[in-house]
Amino acid sequence: MTEIVPITDPADPRIEPYRDIRDRDLVGRDALFVAEGRVVLNMLLASAAYRPVSLLIAAHRIESLADLLVRVPEDVPVYAAAQPVMDAIAGFAIHRGILAVGRRNDTPDADTLLARVQGPGTILLLSAIANHDNLGGIFRNAAAFGVPAILLDSDCCDPLYRKAIRVSVGAALTVPFAKLPRGTDPIALLERHGFEPVALTPSAAATLARHRPAARTAVLLGAEGPGLDPALLARARPLSIPMAPGVDSLNVATTSGIVLHHLTQVAPD
Amino acid sequence: MTEIVPITDPADPRIEPYRDIRDRDLVGRDALFVAEGRVVLNMLLASAAYRPVSLLIAAHRIESLADLLVRVPEDVPVYAAAQPVMDAIAGFAIHRGILAVGRRNDTPDADTLLARVQGPGTILLLSAIANHDNLGGIFRNAAAFGVPAILLDSDCCDPLYRKAIRVSVGAALTVPFAKLPRGTDPIALLERHGFEPVALTPSAAATLARHRPAARTAVLLGAEGPGLDPALLARARPLSIPMAPGVDSLNVATTSGIVLHHLTQVAPD
Repeated sequence: MTEIVPITDPADPRIEPYRDIRDRDLVGRDALFVAEGRVVLNMLLASAAYRPVSLLIAAHRIESLADLLVRVPEDVPVYAAAQPVMDAIAGFAIHRGILAVGRRNDTPDADTLLARVQGPGTILLLSAIANHDNLGGIFRNAAAFGVPAILLDSDCCDPLYRKAIRVSVGAALTVPFAKLPRGTDPIALLERHGFEPVALTPSAAATLARHRPAARTAVLLGAEGPGLDPALLARARPLSIPMAPGVDSLNVATTSGIVLHHLTQVAPD
Repeated sequence: MTEIVPITDPADPRIEPYRDIRDRDLVGRDALFVAEGRVVLNMLLASAAYRPVSLLIAAHRIESLADLLVRVPEDVPVYAAAQPVMDAIAGFAIHRGILAVGRRNDTPDADTLLARVQGPGTILLLSAIANHDNLGGIFRNAAAFGVPAILLDSDCCDPLYRKAIRVSVGAALTVPFAKLPRGTDPIALLERHGFEPVALTPSAAATLARHRPAARTAVLLGAEGPGLDPALLARARPLSIPMAPGVDSLNVATTSGIVLHHLTQVAPD
């Protein structure tokens, strides 16, 4: 097991990446991110695509986290601080008592990611999903239904933001994703890799419930308010989920669950 | 249009129900609740089952809310306060600039509510849904898929809590619900009204995707962690949503959307 390094001063420079984490994002800083909680940390330690850079734990949790700590690579420092010091570092009360800074090892571009998806599969293309709860929820559903790849346009928020990882229950660390550079033509990209683009939109005459999907399907999902860019919609097969009068939308994470259940478990048979 | 009453003192006793609303619940106080935002207020004003008791609006919003204010009954006071006074009353920043206290007029017991559901229909029975986001999300999905009744056991939180109403996008004010007194036998209640109880549980051999529902179906949903009480599960038809290895649950609100879409739009055909 790696040595545990005691931290007594919240200003200690070694724990700088953990400072005031509530309102900031480590994105862009060497592909670093902050993960929290036992479930997510276990996923980080098991992942080939990510690796821990360091851990920060509450001193009183050392014993109860022993099973996790033995799996931390020897060259990864584990810092331990009394709970008040830990809270002072992070800028709020860290009830879970365990944080890690991680790094993404594998950052494929979209073409590389899609080339890895062999055979049948349902993937997601997300446009302007700017809410971390929704993005985390979409990743959680994608993991549940075995989605092999998620593409994010340049208006999406970051799946590796702490809250998105937490809401995804770690799925942001298990579902492979790629970010599309601004200006990418996502439909051309999908077609190049043999994915039929389908788009959920309330105005479509064809319903999801009756849709028979292609073996390789890409589901386009946009933000709840504005919906998908009409130029994208026009180039995808539009599908609707009919709703009761007076209701005009579903939450986008819920929509992803409905669509993935239908396309992966109902429609193929 | 009703007269607008200016409020300049946050301690004014007339606006007592709006004080420090973030962390409290008006439940039990004459069936009062707090609603916020234009969309929800419009639903409150249109509802037969609820009525507004008073409104509190930010003074600078009077003009932009004129279309809504003309629909407020004459005997319902509309209080207007400068934004800082409004924020001081509520205890946090009320960005939406409009709050109302409402009252539930129609509080049917479960038997009365179910007796109103004629013909085919899919209803929900919720057990121990203690998270307002999840409860609001379930109501939102129920409204989208035309659910005529929701039953809540005594371990559920309140759909009329401010945050649950907000997350439901007002559906907590449109989908009829009844709370079951502690000790109610919910399965006997459902069977008395001709509803087949189905329960979502990961261990079931039968899948939702292959299920052909009865014309009158009640979907039992429990909290994500503990799941449904085994004694309830044993008396319902168990259905699973198969998930990828390593994933053991879906968010319960997402589950409600998947199940309702399947039972109301896919399976009947």
